[in-house]
Amino acid sequence: MKKMTESGSPFLFFFSFFCLLIHCLPVYSAKSPPPRFPSSLISPEDKISLSARQNQLYRTKYFTQVLDHFNYYPKSYESFQQRYLINDTFWGGAKSNAPIFVYTGNEGNIEWFAQNTGFLYETAPQFKALVIFIEHRFYGKSIPFGGKKDVAYSNSTTLGYLSSTQALADYASLIIDLKNNLTATDSPVVVFGGSYGGMLAAWFRLKYPHVTIGALASSSPILNFENITSPYSFNDIVTKDFRSESENCYKVIKGSWQQIEDTANQRGGLELLRKSFKICKNYISANDLEGWLRTAYIYTAMTDYPTPSNFLNPLPAYPVKQMCKAIDDPTTGNDTFAKLYGTATVYYNYSGTATCFDLNDNSDPHDLGGWQWQACTEMIMPASANNEESIFPPSEWQYKNRVSYCERAYGIEPRPHWITTEFGGHDIKRVLRRYGSNIIFFNGLRDPWSGGGVLNNISESIVAIVAKKGAHHVDLRFKTSEDPEWLEDVRKQEIKIIAKWISEYYHDLAHDQLS
Amino acid sequence: MKKMTESGSPFLFFFSFFCLLIHCLPVYSAKSPPPRFPSSLISPEDKISLSARQNQLYRTKYFTQVLDHFNYYPKSYESFQQRYLINDTFWGGAKSNAPIFVYTGNEGNIEWFAQNTGFLYETAPQFKALVIFIEHRFYGKSIPFGGKKDVAYSNSTTLGYLSSTQALADYASLIIDLKNNLTATDSPVVVFGGSYGGMLAAWFRLKYPHVTIGALASSSPILNFENITSPYSFNDIVTKDFRSESENCYKVIKGSWQQIEDTANQRGGLELLRKSFKICKNYISANDLEGWLRTAYIYTAMTDYPTPSNFLNPLPAYPVKQMCKAIDDPTTGNDTFAKLYGTATVYYNYSGTATCFDLNDNSDPHDLGGWQWQACTEMIMPASANNEESIFPPSEWQYKNRVSYCERAYGIEPRPHWITTEFGGHDIKRVLRRYGSNIIFFNGLRDPWSGGGVLNNISESIVAIVAKKGAHHVDLRFKTSEDPEWLEDVRKQEIKIIAKWISEYYHDLAHDQLS
Repeated sequence: MKKMTESGSPFLFFFSFFCLLIHCLPVYSAKSPPPRFPSSLISPEDKISLSARQNQLYRTKYFTQVLDHFNYYPKSYESFQQRYLINDTFWGGAKSNAPIFVYTGNEGNIEWFAQNTGFLYETAPQFKALVIFIEHRFYGKSIPFGGKKDVAYSNSTTLGYLSSTQALADYASLIIDLKNNLTATDSPVVVFGGSYGGMLAAWFRLKYPHVTIGALASSSPILNFENITSPYSFNDIVTKDFRSESENCYKVIKGSWQQIEDTANQRGGLELLRKSFKICKNYISANDLEGWLRTAYIYTAMTDYPTPSNFLNPLPAYPVKQMCKAIDDPTTGNDTFAKLYGTATVYYNYSGTATCFDLNDNSDPHDLGGWQWQACTEMIMPASANNEESIFPPSEWQYKNRVSYCERAYGIEPRPHWITTEFGGHDIKRVLRRYGSNIIFFNGLRDPWSGGGVLNNISESIVAIVAKKGAHHVDLRFKTSEDPEWLEDVRKQEIKIIAKWISEYYHDLAHDQLS
Repeated sequence: MKKMTESGSPFLFFFSFFCLLIHCLPVYSAKSPPPRFPSSLISPEDKISLSARQNQLYRTKYFTQVLDHFNYYPKSYESFQQRYLINDTFWGGAKSNAPIFVYTGNEGNIEWFAQNTGFLYETAPQFKALVIFIEHRFYGKSIPFGGKKDVAYSNSTTLGYLSSTQALADYASLIIDLKNNLTATDSPVVVFGGSYGGMLAAWFRLKYPHVTIGALASSSPILNFENITSPYSFNDIVTKDFRSESENCYKVIKGSWQQIEDTANQRGGLELLRKSFKICKNYISANDLEGWLRTAYIYTAMTDYPTPSNFLNPLPAYPVKQMCKAIDDPTTGNDTFAKLYGTATVYYNYSGTATCFDLNDNSDPHDLGGWQWQACTEMIMPASANNEESIFPPSEWQYKNRVSYCERAYGIEPRPHWITTEFGGHDIKRVLRRYGSNIIFFNGLRDPWSGGGVLNNISESIVAIVAKKGAHHVDLRFKTSEDPEWLEDVRKQEIKIIAKWISEYYHDLAHDQLS
């Protein structure tokens, strides 16, 4: 079987957080829910205040943001409208210096993150916190160049302003301005983020300690750069997830890639595959099918939540277990394709409304497309699949393939060393054990991204919370009545730490005001 | 007497560190000394190793630096040659992880700073440190756009890349690359800087703790932005300096501005002034003369060193005292202009070679001219003179005057809030008391810039060293046999603290290597 590489395979291309690009998001995902609290999940007391605000999670606002924070030529003075979502239902107000909880938006429509990050809303009442979700530049409605995505995304000259450092400076500028407008300059700000948003939250605390007192960085693989952590970790964890459910499940999937290719190479094989997987269109290739399945496995592993969810797609509780149930189902006997089809429907058709599937659907309901640019500039996170154990076909990360893709796509080269130059990562324990404070790194070990996360405490107040059974930023999701105890414990730990940050801040503030 | 404002007066314009722009640097300053150790100041042991290297302070090298670290459009990929000076005479080498001392260059030719920053060279032997001075982009020989200053300085489109954040990213990139090339990745880096270079050193520790283990920020007025400290502090300290020598000295200077203007307004008055101050050219104005004198007072206050020096100009020890001696000199009786001329010669003609003076000399031997751009973009440091006590005529800082100047000069507006947005400054004690580590803020209280400095300890390892009798980064200067005890003490304290940083680092390194 041929090795898959970035250049050789249309899928497997960019390991992004929520977007494998070619299969950026699969078809038939339910539409995003309206921006409302899941009413079953909130206390009666909260319900009252929420109903007074038409049950809304947030109001939408815009901030006039500078295009380029770091340079001063005339073009860099251009501005754009940056969207942010605000909920002041629970806020204790500026006079009491009540806290501000800020979600540092990541690579997508901010409403989508707000709807999937209940932790801020559910924790706000006890802290009387103002809740803000800030959209990342170049995503959602926060598009420079007149808000016109076709202009902003047209080429590298306009896309050039899409970078993590600009995004962090956006957050600093917006938060400072907002606090001034609210005359809330002494309100402590706590930042939160998941995934790339978690990286931004951690980096924001490291770069802007004067703007935030602490960061909860959930599932943020800040060590997934250069050679800091193993390039195999991502695929190894996906492998482990499936294997933990059943050895047979792992073996069937691992063996299936060869079977798909063998079948595709036989006369009539592609048609057989097309029918086996209910592919809508006539066209099918082994590569496309493999990518489609791989996407399902990866995202299911990432979102292997203990309760039913609808983040990327509607999914049952413990969806990896459900996939393996489909494979281990004795009624499908030795029919590998029927078994695989069973796994695919867990991810692509849990709602049961699909009658056929489109392998090459490029719809992007959560507006994740800008990640391709980020993956061509600074987000160079090596990911390989080892030869022996991997559930996926072996693959080796080749930087040169990324380069040639990016040169073709945008006419630019990545800067693979920039993230570690700007934000560090190497020897993080040595660097931060006597430096900085107030960061929580949460990781769930079933999350493939956890391999690049901070899994050990660095100092007394830069701490790791690790949940063996957790998936991708599960801690930040809305509570449900079925949440397992370990998840409740994680949130309790996080809240306790955040409470300590805020209480220390008030102590220091009172001390300063006396002196 | 009319109030002087930024727009109203050709001098007083930009309070920069070493450059009042219109009188950027006065005439007849001695040429920069050659880049050699002052041989009387080094130990016999050091002399040997130095003579082996032709007694040189440094070798000159260049690094290919990225033009724009934060954006990714094609132009931003351009590079330029950044100069750095290196001295490995004392270095213990990569194998023993011997330290690297880096001077974060400020707004001028880096050779000038290297020649006036003996502290690194003199401290290097005991730490077996490699010594590096990095030149700030757009100064000296580190000119983007092909090294052509006429192109780089031609307009805001090219000057736009001159900013503090770009400079810090330059330092990070260069240091990381240099360490890789020397296979010295585990060598601890300590950064040093004076004045704006001290601001950069402190900010570098705050923004790049993964690149440096600590910073000695000497005379760095990082609190001189917005309304963090009083806009009057600079002029108040100049006033206090002269007043501390003699009340008469202060009174004569304070009264002289009116006298100069009155004289200038009389028939033949300008000619009288021209002759009194030995002005070379026919043209003279009260404004120009006042600016010329003011420059002398300010720079003399800044460089009121306890030993003879030649930083901005050749000066005697305690030059403020010498100026006041000239004023209090009974032989000049009531002749104010003769007294003022006496002060001017202390600053402008200590070497005794000048026969007349040019008030409008714009020569810039230390290549400080780029500061004007920085003062029009991010370096907005308000400076006023109060009405009652100031030795200078009253003046009020008016931001709008800066704006209109910068619009005329470059067609751009300053961003007065950027520095505090990016680097903080407000409530610095509250922000950093539980965050960060390993910064020494040195200030000499006779230095007018000390009013914007950090004068109190922030935490156990972010500390202030304050020398009541100290001037602008006096601690960083080459030792002399006449140094007063307080200065020796300051340096001893600094060395002790730096030794602690390095020792802690080695402790942590050994711990990591064992684990």
